Amino acid sequence: MVKIEVPEPKTKRGVATRSKIMKAAERLFGEKGYYDTSINDIATKAKVAPGTIYIYFKDKFTLYCYLLNDYSHLLRSEIVRKIKELDCKTRREAEEVGMLHFLQTIQEHPYIYQIIWESLYIDKSLFIDYYTNFAEHYTKGLDKAFADEEISKFDNEVIAYMLMGIVNFIGLRYVFFKKDRNLEDVVGEVMEVLDKGLFRKP
Amino acid sequence: MVKIEVPEPKTKRGVATRSKIMKAAERLFGEKGYYDTSINDIATKAKVAPGTIYIYFKDKFTLYCYLLNDYSHLLRSEIVRKIKELDCKTRREAEEVGMLHFLQTIQEHPYIYQIIWESLYIDKSLFIDYYTNFAEHYTKGLDKAFADEEISKFDNEVIAYMLMGIVNFIGLRYVFFKKDRNLEDVVGEVMEVLDKGLFRKP
Repeated sequence: MVKIEVPEPKTKRGVATRSKIMKAAERLFGEKGYYDTSINDIATKAKVAPGTIYIYFKDKFTLYCYLLNDYSHLLRSEIVRKIKELDCKTRREAEEVGMLHFLQTIQEHPYIYQIIWESLYIDKSLFIDYYTNFAEHYTKGLDKAFADEEISKFDNEVIAYMLMGIVNFIGLRYVFFKKDRNLEDVVGEVMEVLDKGLFRKP
Repeated sequence: MVKIEVPEPKTKRGVATRSKIMKAAERLFGEKGYYDTSINDIATKAKVAPGTIYIYFKDKFTLYCYLLNDYSHLLRSEIVRKIKELDCKTRREAEEVGMLHFLQTIQEHPYIYQIIWESLYIDKSLFIDYYTNFAEHYTKGLDKAFADEEISKFDNEVIAYMLMGIVNFIGLRYVFFKKDRNLEDVVGEVMEVLDKGLFRKP
């Protein structure tokens, strides 16, 4: 488990500068990869002095970990917020809204797969933590849905990885490989299987 | 699309030598990554002269592509063979056998995720081809299952990516992260959702 410490900027300008740095890093990590990107490259892209980056992040590794956390937040906490905002009444509705939000988020961050999965080559434990953490929150949500009698009785950790796998691979095909389908329709197809099961009933 | 040409060895000894080279490459690509592994490293590990490797593979990239093809074969054609061998009568049975075989195969090849996913950083089109190819075959199988009235009517390309996502993420958790569960049981849980759907019926 890797712990990073990143102090919060104290001013609005600080927040804006950090955000510029993050955007530049995201672009470069995505285009050239983590190892071929230096703090200097990020500074040039963000139009800040290299020294400025060190005010916010101890080193490139810390910046990378911060970006991973940020994605985890975007893909998880933001989904929870959206589900509340849209006042989803059922777990089914929440699942559908969550899946669509996930796909839209990766559409807005075209390098997200490369950046998250590169953790496997930077520090394997980052990769494991990222998904373990994601799955733990998902499992808790499913446990609650079971308590609320909305889903059947399953091993919810298995279900969490199932659903994470579905949305990640649907995202690979319909966002990352080729954007040739309406995402609502694709999510609709997935929901149908989750509603009825895959196999034809006799 | 990357095309590679690898001539088949003409003797049994040639087949054995190539297999030694592949095993060494698999280990090193997995442990140190593609970029930090040289043909010399592979030769040392395989206990062959570097020149011997060039008899079989034009360069490191060709060797890597060949390994990817080999995985694709192991995870796909071998599943088809196994399903025939076990004389699976229904698509449901085939799906269950296939999923278990997939998980057992990645268990036997502990570096398979790292090696397949590193294609994203070596040549993105390799990664896209790998999964597109896999999905095309899967989709055809599902189309046949629909024609045989075994599965309901869906967009089978969506279903293919769904099922690929499921088995890949189940494999991440129960093989790659931690081997703390009986794989038959885990597959059984997944099959239950595919049988009945996720949500409780009113």
